[in-house]
Amino acid sequence: MSAEIVNPRTDHTIDAQDSLDSIDPAFALHRGGKMAVQATVPVRDKDDLSLAYTPGVARVCSAIAEQPELVNEYTWKSSVVAVVTDGTAVLGLGDIGPEASLPVMEGKAILFKQFGGVDAVPIALDCTGVDEIVETVARLAPSFGGINLEDISAPRCFEIENRLRERLDIPVFHDDQHGTAIVTLAAMRNAARLTGRTLGQLRAVISGAGAAGIAIAKMLLEAGIGDVAVADRKGVVSSDRTDLTPVKAEIAAMTNKAGISGSLEEALAGADVFIGVSGGTVAERAVASMAENAFVFAMANPDPEVHPEVAHKYAAVVATGRSDFPNQINNVLAFPGIFAGALQVRASRITEGMKLAAAEALAAVVGDDLAADYVIPSPFDERVAPAVTAAVAAAARAEGVARI
Amino acid sequence: MSAEIVNPRTDHTIDAQDSLDSIDPAFALHRGGKMAVQATVPVRDKDDLSLAYTPGVARVCSAIAEQPELVNEYTWKSSVVAVVTDGTAVLGLGDIGPEASLPVMEGKAILFKQFGGVDAVPIALDCTGVDEIVETVARLAPSFGGINLEDISAPRCFEIENRLRERLDIPVFHDDQHGTAIVTLAAMRNAARLTGRTLGQLRAVISGAGAAGIAIAKMLLEAGIGDVAVADRKGVVSSDRTDLTPVKAEIAAMTNKAGISGSLEEALAGADVFIGVSGGTVAERAVASMAENAFVFAMANPDPEVHPEVAHKYAAVVATGRSDFPNQINNVLAFPGIFAGALQVRASRITEGMKLAAAEALAAVVGDDLAADYVIPSPFDERVAPAVTAAVAAAARAEGVARI
Repeated sequence: MSAEIVNPRTDHTIDAQDSLDSIDPAFALHRGGKMAVQATVPVRDKDDLSLAYTPGVARVCSAIAEQPELVNEYTWKSSVVAVVTDGTAVLGLGDIGPEASLPVMEGKAILFKQFGGVDAVPIALDCTGVDEIVETVARLAPSFGGINLEDISAPRCFEIENRLRERLDIPVFHDDQHGTAIVTLAAMRNAARLTGRTLGQLRAVISGAGAAGIAIAKMLLEAGIGDVAVADRKGVVSSDRTDLTPVKAEIAAMTNKAGISGSLEEALAGADVFIGVSGGTVAERAVASMAENAFVFAMANPDPEVHPEVAHKYAAVVATGRSDFPNQINNVLAFPGIFAGALQVRASRITEGMKLAAAEALAAVVGDDLAADYVIPSPFDERVAPAVTAAVAAAARAEGVARI
Repeated sequence: MSAEIVNPRTDHTIDAQDSLDSIDPAFALHRGGKMAVQATVPVRDKDDLSLAYTPGVARVCSAIAEQPELVNEYTWKSSVVAVVTDGTAVLGLGDIGPEASLPVMEGKAILFKQFGGVDAVPIALDCTGVDEIVETVARLAPSFGGINLEDISAPRCFEIENRLRERLDIPVFHDDQHGTAIVTLAAMRNAARLTGRTLGQLRAVISGAGAAGIAIAKMLLEAGIGDVAVADRKGVVSSDRTDLTPVKAEIAAMTNKAGISGSLEEALAGADVFIGVSGGTVAERAVASMAENAFVFAMANPDPEVHPEVAHKYAAVVATGRSDFPNQINNVLAFPGIFAGALQVRASRITEGMKLAAAEALAAVVGDDLAADYVIPSPFDERVAPAVTAAVAAAARAEGVARI
């Protein structure tokens, strides 16, 4: 405790915080931040400087001014993503503001690099209005090849993403929605294969109508799920409710063919799939009421909606958001490859087809090793990012949004 | 020419641009950009991930939410600078827009790293209004420890910097103004020492009333210059002119004690110092009309206002902006150490005292080797950045703007 701790970046000795670093290795690891910038060209002497900076750089600038698309060849734009947040929905911590969100954004940035070879820069914004965020991100866009929206609370996240997608000609992707949906779909595809069913034969119930829940519902519909219902704290989101936000009203119209109303637990009776992205809990008796060969994806962190051991008593496949149980539904399986693939072909957007292709590629990595405790690969499986990257790039070409 | 050229970031083969890369090494060097992001902590396995990302990161976020100043200890905020431009005054190229400015901003970023150990991120904005730029930068500020404004045209650059300085509690520094002024002052201090004079004994004439000219005039006044006059294309900026912008009117009131009016060349008669930051030219007869032991700092790039060989016929000390003549006035001598020093003590702003201290430290590096062709060190002199860093940090402490 009395050892001198020095910030490696500032050479400044910090005593007051020694206790945090000593008590918790997460603090020790975070000291000084988790990332840095590096030059990829030499600047050893004035000859180097005359190429990398003036006067040589002026010729490159002039060429880009004449042929704007050259910016993607001669700068890092085509390989760098902004990880943008307003700090309003950070992990399970809620609205903690932009500064306090930075450790997560840096974490995301280094995962982009580690798993996808994508450069990423944390941009935590000091504003929360939809117009302000959209304007700000649009003004930043010339510097970046893509925009990863992160930890922005619902329902603002939906409008922000939609408006930026319309306005910008680079990929805009709200990972809390689509990353989660892609990995969930991949796991569900494999769970269905394991139990000898198609997605069309399944009825799913999603607990949580925030960013993840809404996106999972839409993606399952795209993928051909038999039926899906979404429940918020007041129960199943159905057209007979009068308290729905526009986003929930849209979901009510798209989902719940079975016409279920009432509580989440009532909806689970006879359902094939439970998907928890709510942070709430589900009673054991409700899990017990599900159909045979059910799937329970209890993804709340750190406490799953139902404990995996309890779920296993009734379900054929159990997945969580935790790394200490089998079948971890982890966004890092998707976002690095999604952006790597989109950037590789300089896609103007990330389409539904690209997301579905990512889910299929991710599911396919499991291959013949498919088992109840292995419906989704490990984040450290080195086959994952290349497979997702290739599938997303190919889908972008097939869908006509690739530019090279 | 027929060789296949592959973008190392995208693995994409480029044929159409082969010729640019073959003809000009600046293009070959710029291919794929000049910088990257790197993780400074390991992410090898799930134990690493549980510290650098969830669940460990949540504890760090919560601590920052409770004690906001911890953001400087546990993220890269306190070591990263945004290099912000709108692309309106890029090098001598003028208003070429944000994308085309990116090679310069990347160059600046790698110079920050190479010379000051400071991480820097290019942010080229797709807006040019003063209000828009101020709002956008203010919204980005939570992610950064400092803001380096770059290549924003006058007179907007003055208001943008002033408003951001008032609004933010991190250093905001328009390098085209203050970096140039600091290095110019350092060279002038040494030229005065060489010729046995004090700054108070010198009358200077500045050609150019843009960002650099205005800032140099103000800094020379702070440093105690005897007299200084600024000339724009219409001649000396003096109070009897009716065509002055507010910024020039302010300068007219502060400068030109001698009450000179008329052309730049008229003002040079009997002057001790010529400072060219205009891109124009000065006739030999005007240089010949200067006082004995004159200094000619002809800093226009690539063509100095007067050729150094011509200037040497009349002047005791000649400096340029070029690396192929002695005495290069190069901003890279200042900005890396300025920000490194300010970040080291977490300064809330960069004061006049910090800038003057930087100039003195920079001048002092020359020491006993002072000579007519050595009034300013080389950018590659490894003593420079540490000297500037230490002086700026000490001045910040002395002026009460240091926070650690």
